[in-house]
Amino acid sequence: MTVPGLANRVLLPRGFRFSAAAAGLKASGRNDLALVEAVAGTTAAAVFTKNRVAAAPIEVGRASLRKSKGRVRALIINSGNANCATGKAGVEACQEVCRQTARLLGIRPEQVFPSSTGIIGVPLQTGKIVAQLGSVVEAREATERGLDQVAEAILTTDTRQKQASASFRSGRSQVRLRGIAKGSGMIHPQLATMLAYVFTDAGASPAELTKQLKAACSRSFNCMSVDGDTSTNDTVLLLASGQSGVHLKAASVRSKFASALHEVCQALANQIIADGEGVQHVIHLLIEQAKNREEALTVARAIAHSLLVKTAWAGADPNWGRILAAVGSCGAPVNPSRINIFIGKQQVCRGGTAWPFDEAKAHRDLSEHDCDIRVQLGRGQSKIIFQTTDLTAEYVRINADYST
Amino acid sequence: MTVPGLANRVLLPRGFRFSAAAAGLKASGRNDLALVEAVAGTTAAAVFTKNRVAAAPIEVGRASLRKSKGRVRALIINSGNANCATGKAGVEACQEVCRQTARLLGIRPEQVFPSSTGIIGVPLQTGKIVAQLGSVVEAREATERGLDQVAEAILTTDTRQKQASASFRSGRSQVRLRGIAKGSGMIHPQLATMLAYVFTDAGASPAELTKQLKAACSRSFNCMSVDGDTSTNDTVLLLASGQSGVHLKAASVRSKFASALHEVCQALANQIIADGEGVQHVIHLLIEQAKNREEALTVARAIAHSLLVKTAWAGADPNWGRILAAVGSCGAPVNPSRINIFIGKQQVCRGGTAWPFDEAKAHRDLSEHDCDIRVQLGRGQSKIIFQTTDLTAEYVRINADYST
Repeated sequence: MTVPGLANRVLLPRGFRFSAAAAGLKASGRNDLALVEAVAGTTAAAVFTKNRVAAAPIEVGRASLRKSKGRVRALIINSGNANCATGKAGVEACQEVCRQTARLLGIRPEQVFPSSTGIIGVPLQTGKIVAQLGSVVEAREATERGLDQVAEAILTTDTRQKQASASFRSGRSQVRLRGIAKGSGMIHPQLATMLAYVFTDAGASPAELTKQLKAACSRSFNCMSVDGDTSTNDTVLLLASGQSGVHLKAASVRSKFASALHEVCQALANQIIADGEGVQHVIHLLIEQAKNREEALTVARAIAHSLLVKTAWAGADPNWGRILAAVGSCGAPVNPSRINIFIGKQQVCRGGTAWPFDEAKAHRDLSEHDCDIRVQLGRGQSKIIFQTTDLTAEYVRINADYST
Repeated sequence: MTVPGLANRVLLPRGFRFSAAAAGLKASGRNDLALVEAVAGTTAAAVFTKNRVAAAPIEVGRASLRKSKGRVRALIINSGNANCATGKAGVEACQEVCRQTARLLGIRPEQVFPSSTGIIGVPLQTGKIVAQLGSVVEAREATERGLDQVAEAILTTDTRQKQASASFRSGRSQVRLRGIAKGSGMIHPQLATMLAYVFTDAGASPAELTKQLKAACSRSFNCMSVDGDTSTNDTVLLLASGQSGVHLKAASVRSKFASALHEVCQALANQIIADGEGVQHVIHLLIEQAKNREEALTVARAIAHSLLVKTAWAGADPNWGRILAAVGSCGAPVNPSRINIFIGKQQVCRGGTAWPFDEAKAHRDLSEHDCDIRVQLGRGQSKIIFQTTDLTAEYVRINADYST
């Protein structure tokens, strides 16, 4: 099968084995249980949703990483049920799955990192999962096919799997990174979650990994939005097996790793945005001349979350007044008379007022699948790129669909 | 004509004359210029948009109120052009309209309060307005017909005019209040603004009026949202002619006035919400057990601005998980395990987890035009009622419509 974003797919990072099975949580009967096993010594770093309503696997995974001091030997993921808003019983169900996985692999429960994605508020059917643990443990393999199966099994409303890879050389050794993700940018009725996992055969301390992962996320996954709704299950996990023999202790390796990791995270983020439900247009928002990064993000999010701006994009309408109004109400102390706005390569607003432009050309630019919109604030040197989407009637139809 | 919300319409407040005309700013040719003249001694209070991109009339009106120390003798309103993002030329155009109106009425320019609503970023055609000033001054009359004409002339995408009234007795005198508003809850392509004006024949100092208006607004206009977009032209103005002979100096009069003013503002807010573009369902959000009012508002806004929650309402889908997730990501330090959610009269979530309920009944409740949704936070005693709407495909269609 062809996997988008993997035109120049590199070899698998060494030290990981993959498998998947159907536990019967998805009504479709498709694979919904995935296992990744990592060699002894593998270090880990994770970032989680900031939503105060966090799912049981978030709670358990966070506690396990603390207890194991950042060591992970296995990853057990189910789709079809988010195990969220399930209370104490949900936490116990998650712990039970980790315990059984650990028993079969001969490792400790806190070395198993759990993830769930799917419907909110429905008890997790632990029995169905446990019944399939034997076969995923049996089937695990260090192959492309194994990884593809995992990338497929974690999907919910996604229309396609999401993978990305990168590699770099350090002396005679090659360091490999491979990432997979799920998330249609949207959340389907009662379904939640963006999940991303990056595997590498670099070696690194958990602390170094955490630093690397936070930096990569802040420029990729944290710089995108489809609907502004923060899921209860969002997780990005980075596992480093050390099997390449290259360690991040050296500064030169660290910087190469940082750019490879960013490349993988950005490619996964791009695939999530492009697969957003009902999305017709992907907008690359360039916020420039902000006082600082935080301010640039605030402005980007205000624009990306404005219903009026998003619906205008759906109609390829070069309505810069709505963008200006969204910036004005974002809370940052902007001065409207210093704001410039560009659609595609054309300036459409200068110093907060109309600037003559070719409307038909702007309409054509916005009709493309991808379009750049640039906003200059005239307040400083900081800039970011933020990816977002339009809001279409199709999106409303999908998410308003009441099905009991 | 019948005016909704005015079943028990009281007599006009004394001291005001009304008129309207067609200046040719609206493509439809309908009336788009309105004048209200107030007797000498009329005091005023206003609240404005918090958007940093504020239209020229906001800037001019604010300065005039300061200069006149809260005295207003006339109101000049145009629809069809918001005079926003028009820079220095826009401010000068607005000042010119005020100056010409003042000249014809024999008053000072700072006693004329300007408002504009309509398209953003297009220069105001002052000439068209000035050419009609003579006829609106000529036509002004203290009649229901005059007021109806004003209420009609200020509309843009609204499907109907919005009026409300209240009165109370103080000794032998009757104090009357009458309010008019525009705003379809939505903002049409490049059109902005909610405007509301309340006229009363009570007497009051500008400081007292300001206090009264702020209190009334915080419970009415500030407790509603259709799309979370803050307009650049929002204005609420309260004018008190003193012609009833009743003054707000007495505490008993002040409290009667406060409830009458709230009644008028709330009735206008209700009409704005109900006339929102594409709106099928009006949701009355009751946020209870918040730490304080600010927290209750934060939670209400997070729910009211969640695309996933709003689209679920469009489908009459009792999807409480989305409401819970919106509360969790609002930034307030809520504890999910203390959150209860009710749809209609039924509890659907208890302590942050599923609570058995009749789904068909909840679907029926949400299918009504109006539905109550109650969220208890378990953090304190504060509560608010917040009005909002669903998000329909029709809304997207209206606002995505590209018309050049």
